[in-house]
Amino acid sequence: MSKNRVEAFTDGVIAIIITIMVLELRAPEGGSFEALWALRYQFLIYLVSFITLAVYWNNHHHLFQVVKHVDGAVLWANVSFLFAASLFPFATAWVGEHHVESVAPELFYGGVVLLADVTYYLLVQCLLRVNTRSEAVVQVLGRGYRKPLITITGNVIALGLGWWWAPLTIIVDTLLLLVWVVPERRIERHLSR
Amino acid sequence: MSKNRVEAFTDGVIAIIITIMVLELRAPEGGSFEALWALRYQFLIYLVSFITLAVYWNNHHHLFQVVKHVDGAVLWANVSFLFAASLFPFATAWVGEHHVESVAPELFYGGVVLLADVTYYLLVQCLLRVNTRSEAVVQVLGRGYRKPLITITGNVIALGLGWWWAPLTIIVDTLLLLVWVVPERRIERHLSR
Amino acid sequence: MSKNRVEAFTDGVIAIIITIMVLELRAPEGGSFEALWALRYQFLIYLVSFITLAVYWNNHHHLFQVVKHVDGAVLWANVSFLFAASLFPFATAWVGEHHVESVAPELFYGGVVLLADVTYYLLVQCLLRVNTRSEAVVQVLGRGYRKPLITITGNVIALGLGWWWAPLTIIVDTLLLLVWVVPERRIERHLSR
Amino acid sequence: MSKNRVEAFTDGVIAIIITIMVLELRAPEGGSFEALWALRYQFLIYLVSFITLAVYWNNHHHLFQVVKHVDGAVLWANVSFLFAASLFPFATAWVGEHHVESVAPELFYGGVVLLADVTYYLLVQCLLRVNTRSEAVVQVLGRGYRKPLITITGNVIALGLGWWWAPLTIIVDTLLLLVWVVPERRIERHLSR
Repeated sequence: MSKNRVEAFTDGVIAIIITIMVLELRAPEGGSFEALWALRYQFLIYLVSFITLAVYWNNHHHLFQVVKHVDGAVLWANVSFLFAASLFPFATAWVGEHHVESVAPELFYGGVVLLADVTYYLLVQCLLRVNTRSEAVVQVLGRGYRKPLITITGNVIALGLGWWWAPLTIIVDTLLLLVWVVPERRIERHLSR
Repeated sequence: MSKNRVEAFTDGVIAIIITIMVLELRAPEGGSFEALWALRYQFLIYLVSFITLAVYWNNHHHLFQVVKHVDGAVLWANVSFLFAASLFPFATAWVGEHHVESVAPELFYGGVVLLADVTYYLLVQCLLRVNTRSEAVVQVLGRGYRKPLITITGNVIALGLGWWWAPLTIIVDTLLLLVWVVPERRIERHLSR
Repeated sequence: MSKNRVEAFTDGVIAIIITIMVLELRAPEGGSFEALWALRYQFLIYLVSFITLAVYWNNHHHLFQVVKHVDGAVLWANVSFLFAASLFPFATAWVGEHHVESVAPELFYGGVVLLADVTYYLLVQCLLRVNTRSEAVVQVLGRGYRKPLITITGNVIALGLGWWWAPLTIIVDTLLLLVWVVPERRIERHLSR
Repeated sequence: MSKNRVEAFTDGVIAIIITIMVLELRAPEGGSFEALWALRYQFLIYLVSFITLAVYWNNHHHLFQVVKHVDGAVLWANVSFLFAASLFPFATAWVGEHHVESVAPELFYGGVVLLADVTYYLLVQCLLRVNTRSEAVVQVLGRGYRKPLITITGNVIALGLGWWWAPLTIIVDTLLLLVWVVPERRIERHLSR
């Protein structure tokens, strides 16, 4: 099975998700600046989701550059990841419409981020299993690749903090993105070798 | 006529269908967990449709890996299949909004699945006709390829059961997916040869 | 300038247009078969638009297989064609919501088809101008390529008939598609040479 | 890091943005020509946005034809540009719904254009920094490439004029597009060498 099909489908789906999110931003109710100002939280959370999905796309693309083999398990781990990603427009719209202080939308958003990170971790594990020891992905990510686990732990803490003050969930999850903004240096080093 | 054009267009259309379905999931009416819980059936049916389309995409892509020639008939069989697939967002929204116990939405959903399976079967038949006996697709699928016929029979039974208890239509159609989750082993074997 | 960029962008835009049209099909107001039956015209016009766009895509793709050079004029003729195509979801929604007997939506739909055919004709003319006499597109389409002019004439007649009985506009335009269902045989012959 | 990934993702996102804008054009409230005429400003601004995004896409694509190297900074400058572009459907819907004489929507639209031009300028600067002096992009655009700065200055003036008479913002920004309709001649000359 070729990895290209998985790559192209993933790129397509993420490009569509990141773009249709804007359809949830309805035009303000009136033609004044106040009407626009009323949407400030919706814009903020839209920006956060846009960056989050861009980071996921960037890392996913990077990951597949060192992958050689894929199998059915990889395919379904990848579909699970795309399913989690596809919930972003919904979660973004819910948080945006009910401001940032409602517990339920914030925790749901945090749950979607957690699901995306868990499925991404599963994807990496499936890739490590199907590729033999001599292949790039195993050599590069096989040992000490702790980023996904750090993020997942952070996501869980973010959910806990959300019970205390709702916006903390998204704030912490957004800070966790910083770990991923620069894709895995080990992959970069491997590719430039 | 090249098969690549059919493949790329199909991949694009299915990626878009699978993604825009989420736009039918409107944000809950309030900021509480109860408001989210009220959407549980919409989520469930969204998940079912997401998986169904992923399975179709996977099998379509697999199928075309052993195809060499396409003609006008293949093209139009494929467009018919895409038309059936394009009805999923509508069917999903209708079932989701009217819970899972209404007969009409469930049977309509079952009808869309049936249409997709019939057009997929037609597509396979058109491919078998245009490719000569020595070509991979005929050698691999030319004899004893019963999956599409089993599913179509199952779809019809699912529609019948839906009259008795509506949710059975989608439950049976979803179980039928299991036949397709692992794409045709004969294609895998041929490709790895 | 490479023709691939024009092709890929066009394929992407048409795949998106053909797919998002389904978003204009709102789920029925209730869970009964009557509620679905009330949408029969919307389904019919959706089907017509789906086939129309599939025919355009097929012919556009065919056309570009014999093209070698593109320039700025081709690019802008193509953008004009895509703009016309992008109005289909709007026209489809308007006709669908106001049944098939209102004059204004039918004539508007006919106008969109006319605009698409005129811009397609312009695109062909620009391609003939930028490619030299020895190139395939000129040899194949340079003389006696009357299809676009026949369709444009037909579109104008369709608009006239629409004043008399509105549905005739779309009926005539749909019949005109038959001229295009099988892409230009001269291109096929050239490609199989 | 390969430039192809950035190109393909950008093409995908812009194709989707330019197409989903039409979803903001809701079908007229009735089946009469008057109902359609009431949407004339929405059509006009839709046309303007369609052309604007086509011009951006064309220039972006042209730009990347002379690019060889990309790095993380280029990637994030590009994501910023795509974020600005993604606000067009929202801005278009707001201007369209509140006619062209409201100050707030017009200035917001002008702000989105300004943001797109600033991020495009940043993208060019990042590309110039990562590519060495001997590479095409630096030789072609390294000196005297004033288009982005002219446009940004024009955008700011357009915003100022908008306070005086709102429609001037979009009128001026649209006139500024003329500078970009024909992509950089220096790139053309380089490519045809």
